[in-house]
Amino acid sequence: MDFSSKLLENAVNEVSRLPGIGKRTALRLVLHLLKQPSDNTKYLTNALTQLRTEVKECKKCHNISDTELCHICSNPNRKEEIVCVVEDIRDVMAIENTGQFRGLYHVLGGKISPIEGVGPQNLNIESLVNKVKSGEVKEIIFALSSTMEGDTTNFYIYKQIEKYNITTSTIARGISVGDELEYADEVTLGRSILNRIPFGDSLKQ
Amino acid sequence: MDFSSKLLENAVNEVSRLPGIGKRTALRLVLHLLKQPSDNTKYLTNALTQLRTEVKECKKCHNISDTELCHICSNPNRKEEIVCVVEDIRDVMAIENTGQFRGLYHVLGGKISPIEGVGPQNLNIESLVNKVKSGEVKEIIFALSSTMEGDTTNFYIYKQIEKYNITTSTIARGISVGDELEYADEVTLGRSILNRIPFGDSLKQ
Ligand SMILES: [Zn+2]
Ligand SMILES: [Zn+2]
Repeated sequence: MDFSSKLLENAVNEVSRLPGIGKRTALRLVLHLLKQPSDNTKYLTNALTQLRTEVKECKKCHNISDTELCHICSNPNRKEEIVCVVEDIRDVMAIENTGQFRGLYHVLGGKISPIEGVGPQNLNIESLVNKVKSGEVKEIIFALSSTMEGDTTNFYIYKQIEKYNITTSTIARGISVGDELEYADEVTLGRSILNRIPFGDSLKQ
Repeated sequence: MDFSSKLLENAVNEVSRLPGIGKRTALRLVLHLLKQPSDNTKYLTNALTQLRTEVKECKKCHNISDTELCHICSNPNRKEEIVCVVEDIRDVMAIENTGQFRGLYHVLGGKISPIEGVGPQNLNIESLVNKVKSGEVKEIIFALSSTMEGDTTNFYIYKQIEKYNITTSTIARGISVGDELEYADEVTLGRSILNRIPFGDSLKQ
């Protein structure tokens, strides 16, 4: 692309570094900002800057939070002995939307994927195992996507906590195999939480 | 969406105000920024802020520019008596990429569209007519998209400059009717500039 402005070129380059945003789309977005009042650009950049510099990770569940403990972990009405293990915070949002789960979450931050160079040490697994070890957790619900990486991650964690003799389950799959959790409809997802099955059983299926 | 963080919610809302970006996509983009080093967010927001506050509109052709006169208008090798009229700066970029045009541009900033409330007074038409009036322009090439709005705009301008007896043409349409100019391939677009036809003739076709 031949830009008439270095400022424009720079902005388009930065926007097109976002995933799934090509140069053409970036140009369209940037030109849109130029047509809007400059306050709109200010609101956008301020919101991103503030998020990036001020947001915290909940020290208990690794969810995104504005405070040390997220609003789920700090809610006294949630059952802290039941922990739902998810890949990322979008899954927390998806399950919260169903209104079917009253326990706490544990956000792994991804799943084990040798191809993408993600090993157990890159995920929030140790803190989960420690929760089990300390006795504060009585039941673990695995709610990872049913892909090979998801299954590998479930199994890896299961092997680490097996000996502590707590209840483990995986969410029931009304959702088709290979589907990402976050795109499931609320009813299906809610039902899959209610119909969770013991993890040991799921290995035999 | 149930956000666990006001900062996150705010950022997602601002990003999803961009055209074609829904809440889910906005969330994906924002979470991507959170996973990247914070410098990446800084580069992005700085680039957008700098563009929005410092970029200029070329006082001659209304192209986006870092200087008073854009690099095309200030290039002594370009023929300033030939002016190619385009809707927006993406069209300038598209035609420049063909390498077929050595005149100057005039960026209208849109096309006449009663439905979208865009009238002639909202576009850079007066400054174009003044260029013709002053005698500095000998030839006008209309390079608007061949939609009803494009044709209306061409015709409106044509009526204003007709009496000054300059050469007018529209780019040849190898491009299918209704297609946006900016998505045309370089060869087709380049050829359509070379094979431009007198505007009066195009009315009879
Ligand atoms: Zn938490
Ligand atoms: Zn210019």
